[in-house]
Amino acid sequence: MVFQKILQDIIEGVDGGLAGMVIAKDGIALETYVRADIDGGVDIQALGVELVTLTGEIGRVTQALGSEGFEELSLVLPAHVAVMRMITPEYFLVVLLGRNGNFGKARYLMRRESPRLQKEF
Amino acid sequence: MVFQKILQDIIEGVDGGLAGMVIAKDGIALETYVRADIDGGVDIQALGVELVTLTGEIGRVTQALGSEGFEELSLVLPAHVAVMRMITPEYFLVVLLGRNGNFGKARYLMRRESPRLQKEF
Repeated sequence: MVFQKILQDIIEGVDGGLAGMVIAKDGIALETYVRADIDGGVDIQALGVELVTLTGEIGRVTQALGSEGFEELSLVLPAHVAVMRMITPEYFLVVLLGRNGNFGKARYLMRRESPRLQKEF
Repeated sequence: MVFQKILQDIIEGVDGGLAGMVIAKDGIALETYVRADIDGGVDIQALGVELVTLTGEIGRVTQALGSEGFEELSLVLPAHVAVMRMITPEYFLVVLLGRNGNFGKARYLMRRESPRLQKEF
């Protein structure tokens, strides 16, 4: 499955990569990849659902700036960094890193893989 | 006024810096700095209000990851990059860049100035 391979390439390619997900706007995950060696403490499904729920609210921010849609949202938390990239207006790529993970590399790989993901929709 | 000086230092110190703001959780700006040479097309007040409104929703994301609060939110849009950093749970620093602005430098300066801002609250 192409999604699984792309998610694995991203998560294994980033220092501190923990989990990745392709998720639809309605909060249903199409594919999830969790690095085998992380503990089970992170609920990536719940994270995905909450991030996708945010996209509705982000619409008001983008309107304040005269934009339609967003490319990328990132959230730095005390123990994690979460990055969400819009693949299409209906589908999103979510990547979760540890707090000291390589945020720049994650953004780069997510942008690089975006056209491969777009081709699937 | 110390806020004005800090905002100016950040915005003038970043390639592509457009505007900065210190804003309370209730959406009321304490101080705003807009670079003199940008056009009037950006409503930084509306941007600040919408970003602060997002913080309530972000609470559900942080809970999904077992965290309390967030450090930084960034949003990459077609024509802008918006970055919000929590100063205290009640006050936020917002910086708006052009799309090709130096996101890394903005994050660095916002983190660096954070203790100076915290001292004011």
